Amino acid sequence: MPLSLGVNPNIIEMEYAVRGPIPQRAAELKKQGRRIIPCHIGNPQALGQQPITWVRQVMSLLEQPDRIERERALKKLAGMKPGALAGLGPEALLSDQVLATAEDFLTRLEGGVGAYTESKGPLFIREAVARFIDRRDGVEAGTSRAADPESIFLTDGASVGVRAIVELLITGPGDGVMIPIPQYPLYSATLKRHGGELVGYYPDEDSGWALGRATLEEPLAAARARGVEVKAIVVINPGNPTGAILDEQSGREVVAFAAEHGLVVIADEVYQDNLYDADWISFARLVGDQDVPLVSLHSVSKGVFGECGHRGGYFEVRHAPAAAGTGDSLLPLLLKQASVNLCSNTMGQALTYLMVNLPEPGSPDRERFDRERQRTLDDLLAKATLIREAFGEMAGVRSFGRIGALYLFPRLEQLPAGNDDFAYCMNLLEATGLCTVNGAGFGQREGTRHLRIAFLPPREMLAEVLPAWIDWHNRYVGG
Amino acid sequence: MPLSLGVNPNIIEMEYAVRGPIPQRAAELKKQGRRIIPCHIGNPQALGQQPITWVRQVMSLLEQPDRIERERALKKLAGMKPGALAGLGPEALLSDQVLATAEDFLTRLEGGVGAYTESKGPLFIREAVARFIDRRDGVEAGTSRAADPESIFLTDGASVGVRAIVELLITGPGDGVMIPIPQYPLYSATLKRHGGELVGYYPDEDSGWALGRATLEEPLAAARARGVEVKAIVVINPGNPTGAILDEQSGREVVAFAAEHGLVVIADEVYQDNLYDADWISFARLVGDQDVPLVSLHSVSKGVFGECGHRGGYFEVRHAPAAAGTGDSLLPLLLKQASVNLCSNTMGQALTYLMVNLPEPGSPDRERFDRERQRTLDDLLAKATLIREAFGEMAGVRSFGRIGALYLFPRLEQLPAGNDDFAYCMNLLEATGLCTVNGAGFGQREGTRHLRIAFLPPREMLAEVLPAWIDWHNRYVGG
Repeated sequence: MPLSLGVNPNIIEMEYAVRGPIPQRAAELKKQGRRIIPCHIGNPQALGQQPITWVRQVMSLLEQPDRIERERALKKLAGMKPGALAGLGPEALLSDQVLATAEDFLTRLEGGVGAYTESKGPLFIREAVARFIDRRDGVEAGTSRAADPESIFLTDGASVGVRAIVELLITGPGDGVMIPIPQYPLYSATLKRHGGELVGYYPDEDSGWALGRATLEEPLAAARARGVEVKAIVVINPGNPTGAILDEQSGREVVAFAAEHGLVVIADEVYQDNLYDADWISFARLVGDQDVPLVSLHSVSKGVFGECGHRGGYFEVRHAPAAAGTGDSLLPLLLKQASVNLCSNTMGQALTYLMVNLPEPGSPDRERFDRERQRTLDDLLAKATLIREAFGEMAGVRSFGRIGALYLFPRLEQLPAGNDDFAYCMNLLEATGLCTVNGAGFGQREGTRHLRIAFLPPREMLAEVLPAWIDWHNRYVGG
Repeated sequence: MPLSLGVNPNIIEMEYAVRGPIPQRAAELKKQGRRIIPCHIGNPQALGQQPITWVRQVMSLLEQPDRIERERALKKLAGMKPGALAGLGPEALLSDQVLATAEDFLTRLEGGVGAYTESKGPLFIREAVARFIDRRDGVEAGTSRAADPESIFLTDGASVGVRAIVELLITGPGDGVMIPIPQYPLYSATLKRHGGELVGYYPDEDSGWALGRATLEEPLAAARARGVEVKAIVVINPGNPTGAILDEQSGREVVAFAAEHGLVVIADEVYQDNLYDADWISFARLVGDQDVPLVSLHSVSKGVFGECGHRGGYFEVRHAPAAAGTGDSLLPLLLKQASVNLCSNTMGQALTYLMVNLPEPGSPDRERFDRERQRTLDDLLAKATLIREAFGEMAGVRSFGRIGALYLFPRLEQLPAGNDDFAYCMNLLEATGLCTVNGAGFGQREGTRHLRIAFLPPREMLAEVLPAWIDWHNRYVGG
């Protein structure tokens, strides 16, 4: 390696704990043959969550369009000669609705899934996303609050959208974005990557991670006092890593705050379907007709789909502010950014379409979807509850807020002297095979210690590992 | 829009002609009902190129794994009762090889296609890529020249890889990268995006876009004289937009030049399978054991696959230089960059795997693949030839170099006074519906004018549009 090159210092300094030293150590242990339970990341299908049947049936046809006719022929055959297909199992034949959905999608997608699409994604998918948003928020199409398909961008997962908006807003080292602490490290990493300042604000853990106006005003004033130009505020709701769900009052505070100070609200709402015992309200609804710029993000990776590998998602822009010096809004610049990558992947686009365009209510496909959906949500809640109950048996472990998203973020109030949460998580991994991420990887209030655990392992696995964790914990913190 | 925000000036200045004003005008015309022939971009399936049958059969099973058993049951049924599946068509049953390939892939891909993978992509796919590179270059596994799976990164198309390496190498405004002129605008856009300097070098058009040492030395010396620190040289081979194939001597000049000046070679080799009448040699072979850092990129979007929409590809790093100040090479930093996006999309990964892991030689699937491959290549060459012949009938249109990639880049030597190639392409679009991109969108030697056309439209379409183009051209340049 005789050649040595200077490299981008932002990349050297950037950190990303969910792929950091703890998961790296877990990968090493796994290679050595240890059983690892990967709870460091929200990757549901890696822990056995089943994909939605109807989604995958349609996706499968999109890859091989000639199968649509073949499946119809098979159905005809089975109709003509009952028993002709005996032995193929109960799910042998695809429903007319699945076949029609795939056919209709391919009719509208010029060139099929193998062709580049428009940079923002095909218009018919963006229209379906807009209808989904309006339905979700109880807004009538055609009204001033209705979503505009031209302000919707399909992306390879939500991360790409976050990066685009941060890249656009940061003009240099003096620009900053407000980020909740703790936060998902995508935000700190992306800000560092583009040379911006992270301006942290601290939701109140003991009140279930609620936000008060002072929580927001103080860090903004402090940042401005040191010359930082704050451009935007990120809200993650339901929360990551906390799993907490923002109450409506806290949401309204954020909007009023952004309106007063001329900030863009970046609402990470990828867990909007991971609700178990709480209501959720979108930032599009909270903003309403107020002239507050909003970028809201959604994804196929979470919710009941859990299709992380397909990298699909979208972001929607509302009340786009002007881009100084261009004579236009941010939208044409976001389009240009998207266009350099040509388009997001079409199978991720298809999944986004299916997520926002469920089977006809009352149809057998819809009934099965509803069953699968409920089964997944029930299972997630049961697992979260099991883990929370286990915390009750661990000395000095407390968890705040309602259960949401895929995570618990308990506070570790009792650690051996000189021990931080990184050491705790590393030792937990070595002792039990359970891979979590320590609180410092997300940021936390000075003097507190936490860990984040994704509540995804199958219940049988939890039944085995939780007692081992409790046992190890009480010895570890006691000793 | 009362709020006005300062935005990243690099994004304002960034240009990307293949999604620029000409294609945008084409989209408008299309909305008005005009027939548009989209030759502004290499998007084969949008113009009727058929996907490879075997690839899509496997991909379809990956989305719906329970079909593997169902397809086996169908085969058994057909074997027991000949004629039982009559009416389903000749391709009704999938081969054992297709079923086994899908099954094997899913066995190795933990959690299936719905789960995040390792940031660089699963090891077994990177191993398959490494074997492909070694086979292609006639290198034995285990030798010093063999590809290392740990230096291979799967990506959402090649664009993502280019962005990662440029982002890493550019530390500030004084850093530059040498780019061939004309170039694919991804390079100029990505450099602009990350605040780097484009240092252009000019392959010699009249010698078929060959490179001499002086062609490279002069721009480097000039850039250094004005204080630019040149970090890398990009070579696109086969060329985009020129379609030209670099002769071996030119390739060796690039390597010797990079070795002497301590530059990274960034070899864009995404068209390595789009060869019609010429040999091609990879930069991995040209570099051999010389200690020249190389990043080479490949993609599933081009070649005979043409799977643009799936956004799959990889880059391979050889002789990674040290990253100053880190005590390590560039590789851990590239991994960190990849990890912030979690992973590339799994269906694009699967396509990459299938591209580098063809069906068993001699098997019916391989025979069909070979036929489909040859049909696509023959068809592309025939279409390129038709278009080149048409140039012969257009006053002052000349095309240089061997035919490669998916493009012709003819020089327009005779334009009406005061007319540039942008006006030419816009007028051509309005007159004939043919959407091309003008030479200035790629860069060109001062005083020359060109256009780039992708030779993708079906032959029947060319038979119709080429006479119209010839006729329009001769009136346009004559008038």
